[in-house]
Amino acid sequence: MKIGVLGTGMVGHAIASKLVALGHHVMMGSRTVDNVNAATWLGTAGARGAVGTFADAAAFGELLFNCTQGASSLAALRAAGAVNLDGKIVVDVANVLSPENTGSESLGEQLQKAFPRARVVKTLNTVNCEVMVNPSQLPDSHTLFISGNDGAAKAKVRELLEAFGWTDMLDLGDIATARATEGYLPLWSSLWWRLGTLAFNIKVVR
Amino acid sequence: MKIGVLGTGMVGHAIASKLVALGHHVMMGSRTVDNVNAATWLGTAGARGAVGTFADAAAFGELLFNCTQGASSLAALRAAGAVNLDGKIVVDVANVLSPENTGSESLGEQLQKAFPRARVVKTLNTVNCEVMVNPSQLPDSHTLFISGNDGAAKAKVRELLEAFGWTDMLDLGDIATARATEGYLPLWSSLWWRLGTLAFNIKVVR
Repeated sequence: MKIGVLGTGMVGHAIASKLVALGHHVMMGSRTVDNVNAATWLGTAGARGAVGTFADAAAFGELLFNCTQGASSLAALRAAGAVNLDGKIVVDVANVLSPENTGSESLGEQLQKAFPRARVVKTLNTVNCEVMVNPSQLPDSHTLFISGNDGAAKAKVRELLEAFGWTDMLDLGDIATARATEGYLPLWSSLWWRLGTLAFNIKVVR
Repeated sequence: MKIGVLGTGMVGHAIASKLVALGHHVMMGSRTVDNVNAATWLGTAGARGAVGTFADAAAFGELLFNCTQGASSLAALRAAGAVNLDGKIVVDVANVLSPENTGSESLGEQLQKAFPRARVVKTLNTVNCEVMVNPSQLPDSHTLFISGNDGAAKAKVRELLEAFGWTDMLDLGDIATARATEGYLPLWSSLWWRLGTLAFNIKVVR
């Protein structure tokens, strides 16, 4: 399918490259059309890759990934344009890197509220980007969380995640449950510091 | 050893009963000496159990467990009296059940700051009380987090936790890392809601 990836950082690169490898056509979107990171990615992406503005990528994609930094995600989606999000699945993988924000409204909820006609699905935000696209690198199964208001959208995203290699996925409920996974960021950060590697995740043992 | 358990709720009962079963002498402390929950527990505790005020239990114990509700833990420890905490390990298992509190200073840090001569160790606060004292009930290994400034205190607590049945324990660092585990509470709550059971925990797969 045609997928727009908003954001040109490590997360955007990892997601976009994985999607291209899986056979999808991907446009990476950024604030300005001459973004250097996007051009670098394009050089590795082959014939199924393209780059453009946030609005270009959002218009191109039948499904979108928000891989921008959490603090600027609302601005990025506004630049993408509500009309280009209308009815589309927006997979929000971003975190707001300020622990003061946890507990109040999550970024996932904010995006859904700002773009009520988009179908926001929060997922992948609890793991590093290398784990996102290659979950089987870890020595045991581990859990990925999914939040969103639209069941059909979550089912579609789950299909994509299965193609990424995810096997243990836990639908937490509506988009308000994004608070739970965004609030995990301080523990994730402590684990990163303690373990000295980004190659980890948690498994819900039940 | 002689251990004081502050708090008479489900957590206090579970911890105190486990400690008695392991051969320790336990005094359960509460705000008032005639606490009904404490009396009920005493009826099940046998010869190694006793009850008293917070101050009685803190004076009695060589090591203390804070099993009070997080919102009243500071008041409970003040009632216990700084002199009765002096130099002692205080195992803080409490959470503040208000997500607004995550991200700022954790309860563990607050207790350590209020009682600088106590040796606060934050642990067990990421699982339900039945899992705290019987971790092997789950079908796979799973992880317990430990935070605290005093290495010797953490080693002592680790011994106790091993006796509880814990095998995978992860020392996150100083007491400031209690923010990470206290901040996990919203995800824990979502998992409880989603799984319909309190018998779960997370395993750090690395």
